[in-house]
Amino acid sequence: MSGSSPSTIHELPTPAVIVDIDALDRNLVTMAAARPGGTLRPHVKAHKCTSLAALQAVRGHRSFTCATVQEMLGMAAAGLADDLLLANEVVDHSRLLSLAAAQDQGASITIAVDSPETIDAAAHAGVQQVVIDIDIGLPRCGCPPEAAGELADLARARGLIVRGVMGYEGHLMAIDRVEQQVRVPPAFASLVTALDQVGSDVDVPVISTGGTGTFDLHPLFVTDAGGRQIPVEVQAGSYTLMDTDYASRGRPFEHACWVLGTVISRSRHLVVDVGLKSLGMDHGNPSIAGATVWFCSDEHVTFAPDPASASPLVDVAVGDRIRVLPAHIDPTIAMHDSIWLVRGDEVLDQWPIDLRGW
Amino acid sequence: MSGSSPSTIHELPTPAVIVDIDALDRNLVTMAAARPGGTLRPHVKAHKCTSLAALQAVRGHRSFTCATVQEMLGMAAAGLADDLLLANEVVDHSRLLSLAAAQDQGASITIAVDSPETIDAAAHAGVQQVVIDIDIGLPRCGCPPEAAGELADLARARGLIVRGVMGYEGHLMAIDRVEQQVRVPPAFASLVTALDQVGSDVDVPVISTGGTGTFDLHPLFVTDAGGRQIPVEVQAGSYTLMDTDYASRGRPFEHACWVLGTVISRSRHLVVDVGLKSLGMDHGNPSIAGATVWFCSDEHVTFAPDPASASPLVDVAVGDRIRVLPAHIDPTIAMHDSIWLVRGDEVLDQWPIDLRGW
Repeated sequence: MSGSSPSTIHELPTPAVIVDIDALDRNLVTMAAARPGGTLRPHVKAHKCTSLAALQAVRGHRSFTCATVQEMLGMAAAGLADDLLLANEVVDHSRLLSLAAAQDQGASITIAVDSPETIDAAAHAGVQQVVIDIDIGLPRCGCPPEAAGELADLARARGLIVRGVMGYEGHLMAIDRVEQQVRVPPAFASLVTALDQVGSDVDVPVISTGGTGTFDLHPLFVTDAGGRQIPVEVQAGSYTLMDTDYASRGRPFEHACWVLGTVISRSRHLVVDVGLKSLGMDHGNPSIAGATVWFCSDEHVTFAPDPASASPLVDVAVGDRIRVLPAHIDPTIAMHDSIWLVRGDEVLDQWPIDLRGW
Repeated sequence: MSGSSPSTIHELPTPAVIVDIDALDRNLVTMAAARPGGTLRPHVKAHKCTSLAALQAVRGHRSFTCATVQEMLGMAAAGLADDLLLANEVVDHSRLLSLAAAQDQGASITIAVDSPETIDAAAHAGVQQVVIDIDIGLPRCGCPPEAAGELADLARARGLIVRGVMGYEGHLMAIDRVEQQVRVPPAFASLVTALDQVGSDVDVPVISTGGTGTFDLHPLFVTDAGGRQIPVEVQAGSYTLMDTDYASRGRPFEHACWVLGTVISRSRHLVVDVGLKSLGMDHGNPSIAGATVWFCSDEHVTFAPDPASASPLVDVAVGDRIRVLPAHIDPTIAMHDSIWLVRGDEVLDQWPIDLRGW
């Protein structure tokens, strides 16, 4: 970093996303131990940052999941395109053309399809590889399992290479653990059945599922109808940075990310310059260690020290920095331009959040 | 627009913010009739768009409210700097220096202060004009009314020009109308009292308050201790575009803004490519006319036609465009790069959302 760059968090312009490099690294190590190599297909939508994705690749995961065309193109531009899966349906012809162009320049591009229309759109634009997206219980994208074989036939008839299947049990991410242990296996079993119906046109079929909430409830491998050992890819992303929602569910990952703010007002309460425009709010209010969050406004969180906390905030002054812990990391990250890497209060580096937009 | 630009909404890349120019104009006319000229100081945080602010200026409002330094600088760069008020506290020295630089280039810059620290920060950076921010009941920024006079003295001692006071009754924006009618006047009265204590160093003192939720509950003018008729500035912004939250409260403004999406999947339900990363979610789920919204994901809204609706959605196909009505407009706008101006399905123009960031 140049001499004029911030050397501590006290010099950062706020609001600012800060990531603790050591906590992040421990999360990467923990996940890579649980799901090594190709048994994890990290989802970049959680961090939207190619520098962070590169660390995931260093930990052995070289196949990635994306939610938008922009994420796919950004990963390709960053040289992380060994095997990119767009786990989402797209019918926008010009965007699909841009994916086909990336593919023609050497990126491995695969997209999810769940209907004749999405198959037509992929074929028409020249995208070559697809997976059949299966509805395994979440009412979102995905075809009924019983329609998967027919769709695969249609895709092949249109000249597409069918690599296998994906299915996301998003309805089971945020439920009680015991209930998860009961309900995730049958959802996954329906995906395995769908793979048998779909088949695969490549050496190693794709079966892709799950997330941070269920990463340890899926096997590492399954055996397909042809007797092949197939890696089960889990599409986890939030494990890297975590948030209060996932942390409350007892996953073995640490908070690695905060939105740093500056205290701008102090009276019977405190106000920090982090708000609705710098925090994903769909999972509710953020948290501040040692304090109680009262409410959020566009550019503010109002909070007060919590005397009942193990270490309540004390002696907070206007100008002090405060770490605000988002309730949901994915939409939070999408609101910011860059991640500041920190160790304690020391600023080590700045990473662009370069996969934003659509 | 160039020949290759979209001519209808069916050609727009999605998600895309669309604004109905006629509904917007009616909202501008309605507000300008209710609060003409300087009795409205439009808040740009709702739309973050200098092209839209320019229309507000055409309707007679040439003083603006901002929430961030970036909004102030963007308005100055757009030549809309007759009288810019940063209705927020800032202690970031380099950002305050940039405001002072804009001021030295001819912009009229005023910032809110509520503490010795924020006064010091303004004076140290060379910003010349301030208002004293008064806590009139919302626990956020603002000094206690009884401290206002002393802070004004301190500001003057530091060489600052004290223009008057501001106070935002945000705690009364979203309550029952009858309760508003009871509680807004005394909150405003405390601001008037504070102005008497603060005084003003300029010809026309500033008394700035309110929002879209209370724009019609404030007088247009008050008489100060010196017998002067002073315009009461209301800091409304959301009236321009509206959202489902404000609409539910019976304000006389129309929905003028939607996030346009494309249907990407259809089965027992429908899925549109608008989600948590393109919608402010702090006021809850968005709405879709003729349909019931089931839930939102990062890049999706799952919904289904509502048979009980007056005109339920019918015959929706993959690839169709759907208008999603945000629950809260301000954070929604902050997630997008541009506004597409439309009349019906026709696309008229593209405006950059050029006041994003901090």
